[in-house]
Amino acid sequence: MSYIQASIQENKDRFIQELIDWLKIPSVSADPKFKDDVLRAAEYLKTQFEKVGMENVTLLPTKGYPVVYAEKITDKHKPTVLVYGHYDVQPADPYELWDSPPYEPVVKTTETHPQGAIFARGACDDKGQVYMHVKALEMMLANNDLPCNIKVIIEGEEEVGSANLENFLIENKNKLNADVILISDTGIINNETPCITNGLRGLCYMEVELIGPNRDLHSGIYGGGVDNPLNVLCKLVGSLKDENGHITIEGFYDDVVELSEDEKKQINAIPITEKMFEESIGLPKSFGEKGYTLLEQLSIRPTLDVNGIWGGYIGEGAKTVLPSKAQAKISMRLVPNQSSKKIAELFTKHFEKIAPNTVKVKVTEHHGGEPYVTPVDSIEFQAAYKAMETTFGKQPLAMRNGASIPIVALFEKILGLKSVLMGFGLDSDAIHSPNEHYGLFNYFKGIETIPYFYKYYAELKK
Amino acid sequence: MSYIQASIQENKDRFIQELIDWLKIPSVSADPKFKDDVLRAAEYLKTQFEKVGMENVTLLPTKGYPVVYAEKITDKHKPTVLVYGHYDVQPADPYELWDSPPYEPVVKTTETHPQGAIFARGACDDKGQVYMHVKALEMMLANNDLPCNIKVIIEGEEEVGSANLENFLIENKNKLNADVILISDTGIINNETPCITNGLRGLCYMEVELIGPNRDLHSGIYGGGVDNPLNVLCKLVGSLKDENGHITIEGFYDDVVELSEDEKKQINAIPITEKMFEESIGLPKSFGEKGYTLLEQLSIRPTLDVNGIWGGYIGEGAKTVLPSKAQAKISMRLVPNQSSKKIAELFTKHFEKIAPNTVKVKVTEHHGGEPYVTPVDSIEFQAAYKAMETTFGKQPLAMRNGASIPIVALFEKILGLKSVLMGFGLDSDAIHSPNEHYGLFNYFKGIETIPYFYKYYAELKK
Repeated sequence: MSYIQASIQENKDRFIQELIDWLKIPSVSADPKFKDDVLRAAEYLKTQFEKVGMENVTLLPTKGYPVVYAEKITDKHKPTVLVYGHYDVQPADPYELWDSPPYEPVVKTTETHPQGAIFARGACDDKGQVYMHVKALEMMLANNDLPCNIKVIIEGEEEVGSANLENFLIENKNKLNADVILISDTGIINNETPCITNGLRGLCYMEVELIGPNRDLHSGIYGGGVDNPLNVLCKLVGSLKDENGHITIEGFYDDVVELSEDEKKQINAIPITEKMFEESIGLPKSFGEKGYTLLEQLSIRPTLDVNGIWGGYIGEGAKTVLPSKAQAKISMRLVPNQSSKKIAELFTKHFEKIAPNTVKVKVTEHHGGEPYVTPVDSIEFQAAYKAMETTFGKQPLAMRNGASIPIVALFEKILGLKSVLMGFGLDSDAIHSPNEHYGLFNYFKGIETIPYFYKYYAELKK
Repeated sequence: MSYIQASIQENKDRFIQELIDWLKIPSVSADPKFKDDVLRAAEYLKTQFEKVGMENVTLLPTKGYPVVYAEKITDKHKPTVLVYGHYDVQPADPYELWDSPPYEPVVKTTETHPQGAIFARGACDDKGQVYMHVKALEMMLANNDLPCNIKVIIEGEEEVGSANLENFLIENKNKLNADVILISDTGIINNETPCITNGLRGLCYMEVELIGPNRDLHSGIYGGGVDNPLNVLCKLVGSLKDENGHITIEGFYDDVVELSEDEKKQINAIPITEKMFEESIGLPKSFGEKGYTLLEQLSIRPTLDVNGIWGGYIGEGAKTVLPSKAQAKISMRLVPNQSSKKIAELFTKHFEKIAPNTVKVKVTEHHGGEPYVTPVDSIEFQAAYKAMETTFGKQPLAMRNGASIPIVALFEKILGLKSVLMGFGLDSDAIHSPNEHYGLFNYFKGIETIPYFYKYYAELKK
């Protein structure tokens, strides 16, 4: 695949300019006033796929924004890779915190990106990473070097929860028939440390409400005879983890898979120390489940976090209210092989059990997601591994990401396909924040690496 | 004092009408748009004191609304009683919940008040109760029957915290020289069960803030390695009371006075059962400190209540934030002989001690108040007791009120005077709420009882 380096070198400026032109379109899916722009961004991408020689390029309708579809089927005997990404972006506000306007992309060098980076909303998440695929396909098609059949779906509602994706996948199940899914919407540790995200945590999100008296009371007149729902809530929620950071819900850990020493070694190879972690977020001291390293706590261990709590008087000064109600949002990150549904049931049962008879308890479940893992010995992981090893000249790490990407579990559930999360962003790229940017090194490294994934995937699949 | 019954009978309609005319003036101290009305209410009262024959009637200035002052000094050898009350009222909104407009008083009968009640904002709190004193003085002065010297201060800022009263008392300390203070701004159990409030709880009001990371984090990426300030807050606040409702702050109970069996008996004579208490506020089950009855828990035992708590995401649906900050307002009702300042120090020390080193802790103190008690064997209590016994034909109960009236502690601190809380309202009179009212029975019973207080106080003081 000797054409790759040469082709990138030759087309460098154009590859940057085309991405910049796309980034100028503010495809903010969350805000209806950008509706025309979101559609324009989809059209722009459609045109680019057509230009590079993809076939059957269409905007497939959903109840919301359309999915840009493209394909190149060259040989029924070749394996088929389905590429997923998104063309919508996060809102850019607060605008005043941007050093340059979010939809007027500029290339600047930074300490992290001495070769320059494109500053614009969506530069990294996910337009820049999607456009790597467009350009990789351009080179491969121009050189008639297509080891796999290719299908692409780029959606326009990822930043608002992909609410229409499930139906889209169900309706287009046959059309999307493939062997594996390739996604570039994650990152690497740093530009010297490639990695592949091979696991994601799931999510179980609960809301609890305690009701004591039927109205807010005067804390002087009633205080002492009423089990204050806020005091009770604190006691109950405070008891959900013990002093070792262990979750106390009965049966919570029953299905948790303990990793092998070898897998743990891989996770702990990531060059992040407790001190670096603490300093990066101004934390007095990190804390997690006893018996596990920080990196393990962040990725392969389940969590329980209060995401929000409220009740009583929360304004300025003092008001002596004894509130009727106390509420909290509590979510748990899950790891393979936990089930969001089962954990929701265990949580509800436990919470109802520990609540005293002085309050009424209501537990409700918000939308959750299942944990996900791509085995490191799978063909798809190995293909990505070898591709990165080739272009970085260094063995990538396997990384478990503590976050959840619900669509990955969705792909597995509906299409029955595993996903490879081969992204090239950096944590410091400020996605979802002002001054989002994407390093040119990362952009071109992605364009360079993607063709190798197809090559190795086809070879290993034989 | 045989003239009392006859005089009330004779002037009944006028006594009602004069109060109604005063109630028509919306003297809402909290809202500047009622400023002229508040001043008009003060003028109205001034005129009434002049009419009944009080002397040196003036509006004494403060930094806010003036204090209406009146006096009748007949004999330097007689004891002097200082009457306190307030002419300002709570805001009346929400107006739509009133059955008749709050400033258009009407007399209606109710189940509790078969003889009728005046419905209007301020009817009970405190214009109606203040006006009982005006009419009692009218009768006594007309009959030249004044066993005591009398001074009266009726302020206009009680409903907004009496912020200027402390300075007023300091500046007018000599002018207000007296033997005891008489206040009618509390209530009786019911119209068959007279009582005198002889104790109030104090207040210590704290605010705590925990800070973990320097910004809100993604609970997937950071969850498991960060001691979530909301989880920590729940654990800490939840630990402030044990399973027996006992407060765990070291030294908290050191100064608490245990009551004698006889005093406890008085408190437990109040005809309120746990069931009545629970039903009145729709409570599943009452709960308080083990080892004490509900009535004791509500009055002579200190409390710790979370008045407000907040942090993280509190909107609709689910947001997976790991918040930087967690905050709570926590107040403690204090009993004799606890000190608000000392308890604030103990709380701060305890909270800082139990907080883990994974978070930064900030504890601040809001304005508090000292507990108060009038001994049942004091002359002033006995005078009120005999007065009520005479007019109700029944021995009144001594009642400890769980709430705090900071001005009572203020009177003791600045003027060195004990207060007698001889009020005639009912809990069901809806003070501070829509449809506030004051029973005609209660209004006239107050007018009838007040002269007896002066009589017995002068006799016992000899």
